[in-house]
Amino acid sequence: MTELPPVSVEALEARIAALFVRCGVRAKSAASVARVIAAGERDACKSHGVYRVEGCLRVIAAGKVVPDAVPRVHDGGGAVIEVDAGGGFANPAFDAGADLLAGRARELGLAALVIRDCLHFSALWSDVEAMAAQGCAAISMCPSYAVVAPAGGTTPLLGTNPFAFGWPRPGPHPYVFDFATSVAARGEIELHRRAGKPIPEGWAVDAEGRPTTDPDAALAGAMLPFGAHKGSAISTMIELLAGAMLGEFMSREALDFGGGAGLLPRHGALVLAFDPARFAARSGRDPLAEGERLLDAIAGQGARLPSERRFAARAVSLREGIALTEAEDARLGRYERLGLAGLES
Amino acid sequence: MTELPPVSVEALEARIAALFVRCGVRAKSAASVARVIAAGERDACKSHGVYRVEGCLRVIAAGKVVPDAVPRVHDGGGAVIEVDAGGGFANPAFDAGADLLAGRARELGLAALVIRDCLHFSALWSDVEAMAAQGCAAISMCPSYAVVAPAGGTTPLLGTNPFAFGWPRPGPHPYVFDFATSVAARGEIELHRRAGKPIPEGWAVDAEGRPTTDPDAALAGAMLPFGAHKGSAISTMIELLAGAMLGEFMSREALDFGGGAGLLPRHGALVLAFDPARFAARSGRDPLAEGERLLDAIAGQGARLPSERRFAARAVSLREGIALTEAEDARLGRYERLGLAGLES
Repeated sequence: MTELPPVSVEALEARIAALFVRCGVRAKSAASVARVIAAGERDACKSHGVYRVEGCLRVIAAGKVVPDAVPRVHDGGGAVIEVDAGGGFANPAFDAGADLLAGRARELGLAALVIRDCLHFSALWSDVEAMAAQGCAAISMCPSYAVVAPAGGTTPLLGTNPFAFGWPRPGPHPYVFDFATSVAARGEIELHRRAGKPIPEGWAVDAEGRPTTDPDAALAGAMLPFGAHKGSAISTMIELLAGAMLGEFMSREALDFGGGAGLLPRHGALVLAFDPARFAARSGRDPLAEGERLLDAIAGQGARLPSERRFAARAVSLREGIALTEAEDARLGRYERLGLAGLES
Repeated sequence: MTELPPVSVEALEARIAALFVRCGVRAKSAASVARVIAAGERDACKSHGVYRVEGCLRVIAAGKVVPDAVPRVHDGGGAVIEVDAGGGFANPAFDAGADLLAGRARELGLAALVIRDCLHFSALWSDVEAMAAQGCAAISMCPSYAVVAPAGGTTPLLGTNPFAFGWPRPGPHPYVFDFATSVAARGEIELHRRAGKPIPEGWAVDAEGRPTTDPDAALAGAMLPFGAHKGSAISTMIELLAGAMLGEFMSREALDFGGGAGLLPRHGALVLAFDPARFAARSGRDPLAEGERLLDAIAGQGARLPSERRFAARAVSLREGIALTEAEDARLGRYERLGLAGLES
């Protein structure tokens, strides 16, 4: 894996955005999608970095995404703001509603952003970081493809259903966690498969419900929820709140609609935003200063805060740039020259 | 453990309420507290049943609760409804705000109930079941006492921080889960201690950070979060949202204020309510019918839904009544005769 000379985050972002435009994506949407992919690479979060470009192009080639969809905002004036992604990618829809969501949270104390009918592939930490940058605590969740068996079951029914939380901090970075409610993220299994490496025990069962360390068998079988029945319950909550409640696909329906887990799933997403200043107002306390007492104490006993590794990688990337491997660069180059025809079958 | 002839749920509730009034609790608050304790016993949820009467009386005897506090509702008209428990029990404060919360969720789509300055001891499933009975999905969470070490740490800093979720179903019972974000609930360790039984491995470490199966050593050391770093992250989120954000005590401060974990903790609580009909309206789908498809499929593959055992026990209790043991009956009888003087030192 020879690395090329590093480029700036902005340069990588612009390169990816141009590539998407070349493949028929509306410019503003291409910018939104490129931003989260470059951010994944910047944070050394490889499972959500340039590796994701191919997945985006494949849904375009398959005609399963509307690349020129314009997100439409529906705001009934209550605490729920809806953005219809119109079958486009989730990121431009989030960007179309983010400021409105933060503003409504400041006005009412809390508010929800509902994204309808989107193609989803990005890590949720970008959503909650954007909210934290506006001073809001946030929870983000969505279904995915039914590839996880519920605790006590044997057949895939739940998605890997990510759950993310952000909390604003006075320093440069918020408190952020973002995890799959499966033991591992599907992207991690996919990366093991590409690398030809076995997955750890306890991540998955095969199509017959037997434990397996073979990534292919795992992808054909069922992944397991984290934390046994508790993680399974949280994943079920995500199906209900970010699927059934919105009237959008749950993970089973997304899988049936997609005809398999090979392409990005189509479903909805839910982001909740809270204004701590508003919640704390009558207490006379500073909620962010209170939060610091806890977070400092966690770090003080040597326990790592979530996202620390990501923020450390970000600092390096912002200072030194991002170095793609020759293989990654060649792949992007092929898409740049050939557009969707650059996809290997 | 000889069992006495069963009594009706209503009779047990009335008996407990009268006992609390005898000990100085305001009648309406006594009814709220008695309701959740009798409900715990009714559902064979022993750790939240009549066993809890003693804990409530002990905080009264210690002067750490305001038994005649009248909950005060503060409604700024936004999505946040606050109830100041005034140092009284949490349950009357919840009851004072519950209808307002459901109404606001129906009006705005979602709303939050903030309970301030309360003594908390009850399971959260009663909150989310009450919301589900009004057609709302709900999340309830609160800090507790700092008795759990964060993942990667060794010293107690987080509470057992319960997290509950409810989703309305067409049948007699909602979908409900309610769990401690520690591997086990503190009440379960307490019950092991009372029974003189060791706790399972993996539940806790002793005061020196070493794994232990001794309930006394566990109570003096630190419990462990469920699901490793993911459960630890969720517990941290609960500290931030239901502690720092409200300007109320987090678990560390509650422990310092309480002078140890021997008495019920004083802190705040947060309940979020969602109106699925409002969220789904533009989709044209019935969110509850969608939810049924998932829940039926989970049950259909033989995986148990959370709370099923509780609902089964409830059916038996409602039909046949609740049989207390002689020891439980004798203890209640002592409080009835002697009031707070019936507490053993």
